[in-house]
Amino acid sequence: MIIPAEFSLIARHFRPLAAAGALDLKDDAALLTPPAERELVLTADAMVAGVHFLPDDPPDLVGRKLLRVNLSDLAAKGAVPLAYLMTVSTPRDTPEAWFAGFAAGLAADQATYGVSLLGGDTTSTPGPVSLSLTLIGHVAPDTAIRRSGARDDDGIFVTGTIGDGALGLAVARGRLSDPSGHLLDRYRLPQPRVGLTLAGIASAGMDVSDGLVQDLGHICQASDLAAEITADLVPLSDAARAAGPAWLETCLTGGDDYELLLAVPPNREAALYHAASTAGIPVTRIGRFHSGPAEVIIRTANGEPLALNRGGWSHF
Amino acid sequence: MIIPAEFSLIARHFRPLAAAGALDLKDDAALLTPPAERELVLTADAMVAGVHFLPDDPPDLVGRKLLRVNLSDLAAKGAVPLAYLMTVSTPRDTPEAWFAGFAAGLAADQATYGVSLLGGDTTSTPGPVSLSLTLIGHVAPDTAIRRSGARDDDGIFVTGTIGDGALGLAVARGRLSDPSGHLLDRYRLPQPRVGLTLAGIASAGMDVSDGLVQDLGHICQASDLAAEITADLVPLSDAARAAGPAWLETCLTGGDDYELLLAVPPNREAALYHAASTAGIPVTRIGRFHSGPAEVIIRTANGEPLALNRGGWSHF
Repeated sequence: MIIPAEFSLIARHFRPLAAAGALDLKDDAALLTPPAERELVLTADAMVAGVHFLPDDPPDLVGRKLLRVNLSDLAAKGAVPLAYLMTVSTPRDTPEAWFAGFAAGLAADQATYGVSLLGGDTTSTPGPVSLSLTLIGHVAPDTAIRRSGARDDDGIFVTGTIGDGALGLAVARGRLSDPSGHLLDRYRLPQPRVGLTLAGIASAGMDVSDGLVQDLGHICQASDLAAEITADLVPLSDAARAAGPAWLETCLTGGDDYELLLAVPPNREAALYHAASTAGIPVTRIGRFHSGPAEVIIRTANGEPLALNRGGWSHF
Repeated sequence: MIIPAEFSLIARHFRPLAAAGALDLKDDAALLTPPAERELVLTADAMVAGVHFLPDDPPDLVGRKLLRVNLSDLAAKGAVPLAYLMTVSTPRDTPEAWFAGFAAGLAADQATYGVSLLGGDTTSTPGPVSLSLTLIGHVAPDTAIRRSGARDDDGIFVTGTIGDGALGLAVARGRLSDPSGHLLDRYRLPQPRVGLTLAGIASAGMDVSDGLVQDLGHICQASDLAAEITADLVPLSDAARAAGPAWLETCLTGGDDYELLLAVPPNREAALYHAASTAGIPVTRIGRFHSGPAEVIIRTANGEPLALNRGGWSHF
C-alpha cells in the first residue's frame, strides 16, 4: 500500500512533537488525563499568512508565534500550559523545508514552555497558509484571572514594553527603520509572560494583542469601570523611543504586544512586584481604574487629555 | 469607544452558542472543569472552502459538517462529546448572512449532540473560508477505542452505508445524477455515529473519512494485521447501488463517509449487534482481520481478488 504524502509528512515533522496521549498522531483523537484537582483553561487562535504573519517570514518563527500567541492568552489567566492541538492548511506547492522549519520552531518552544502536541490535522488550501492552534492549560479551581474582576482604585499595570510589535510590523513593511533589529524581532517572536504568578494578586487581566488602548477598553467594559492612564508612563523600549513621538499613537493602539495588562488592588501591588521580580518579568504601573463610564482616558504628563485617531486593531 | 465589527459579529452570532465556561466569549480563554474520573478525548479538524466543502454550500451545512466531522472522530473512540473551540477565517466581504447561517447550523447540532462552544477566534483571510474546530469529549479511563487493538480473527464491521459521501461529491461536481438527493445530502451533512457503545465490544476502531480501503489499511498498520473484505458485503445505499458498478471503486476508496469501521472479536459480535440495535445504528460485517502483512485484500463474491486503481484520498 502506498503511504500518501500527507502521512509521511506528519510522520517526519510532527510526530517528534507528540505527547504520550497523542498516540503517535496515528489515531483519530488524542487522550489526556486531566491533572487532578485543577480547572482547565483553553484558548484557540488562528493565524493566516498575509494577515498575522508575512508569507516570507521564516517558518520556525511562524510556528513559534502560533504557539506563543496562545501561550500569552493562558499566561494572562495565570494558567500553566500543558498541551495543544493544531491544524495546518498549506498550498500544495509548500516546500518540505517550510514544514521542517515550522516544526523546528515548535520543538524549540515546546522545550521552553513545557508543552507538547496532542493532535490535529493537515490539509491543503488553494489560499494562503492558514494555521489554528488550541492550547490547554490549568489553574487551581476558581483562580483563573478574568477580564471582569477589576475594582475601583485598582492600579493598571503592564509587563515589558508596549508598541514594539506594531512598530516591528511597520519595519517589516519598510515604513520605519530598525537599526538594532529589536522591533522586527518583537513583531516576529512574541515573548509570552508565562510564569508570572497572578492568582491572589491581579483582580483582572488579559494579554495585549489588539493594542493597549483597545484591550484596556475591554477590561473597562467587562469590569464596568473607567481607566485612566498617563501616556508618559507607558513603558517603551529604547528602539520604540528612538522612532520618535510621531509613532507614540502606534505604540498605544497597535497590536501584537503580547504583554500582560493587569488590574491590581493597592494592597497587592507589593505582591505583584515581588512575583514579577521572582519571574524576571518587568512590570510598570501606568494608571488606575475608577468608577465611571467604561472608557479609556489617556493623559499627557501635564494632565491634558490625549485624543487618538484610532482605538485599536480589529480584523474586520 | 467604537466597538469594532469583529466583536459585534461574535456577539450576535457566536455568543448564543457559548458554554458557561466560555465567559461569554469575552475573555482570552475559557474554563472547563473536567468531568470527574474520566479521561479526555480530543480531536481537531480543519475545513477549507474549495477543498472540504464548496464555496456556495449553504453555510448552515458548513457549520454542521465542521462539527460533525469532529463528532465522528470522537464517536469512533467511544467518547461522549462535551465542548469545542473553533477558529473562523473569512474573506472581508463575507456577508453577515453567511455567519448567521453558519451559527444557526452549529446551534442546531449543539442541541442534537449536547455540545457547546467554549471559545475561539475570528479573523479575516485573503483566501477562502478556513475553519478549524477542536472537540473535547471523555471516556471512562483506559476505555478509548484505538486503531491499534485489532486481533487475529476479529470481524470487520462498518456502520451505515459506504460511498455516499464520495458519490455526493461527484453529484455536486455534475458528474453523477442523484434523483433522490440522498447522495448530495450525505456529502454535505455527515451523520456521526455518536452514541454507539464501543467500550468492551470493539477491539479497534476509527471513522471512515479518507475512504474505506485506505482507512482499513490504517487499522492494519496500527494493529499489524491483514484485512480481508468482500466487496459485495460492503453496505451501499439504494442511491449508490443505482449509480451502477462503475462507481463501486469510488464507494470503496472515496472519502467523506463518516461511518465507523470497527474490529470486533467473534465473542463480542452479539454485543455489537445489541448495542447497534439500542442506538438505532445499522452495522454490517464485511470481512475479517488475520495474521499477515499489513494490507487490505478485497475479494469479489466468488473469491477473486479485486484490484483497485487508487487506495484512498490524501490531501497532499
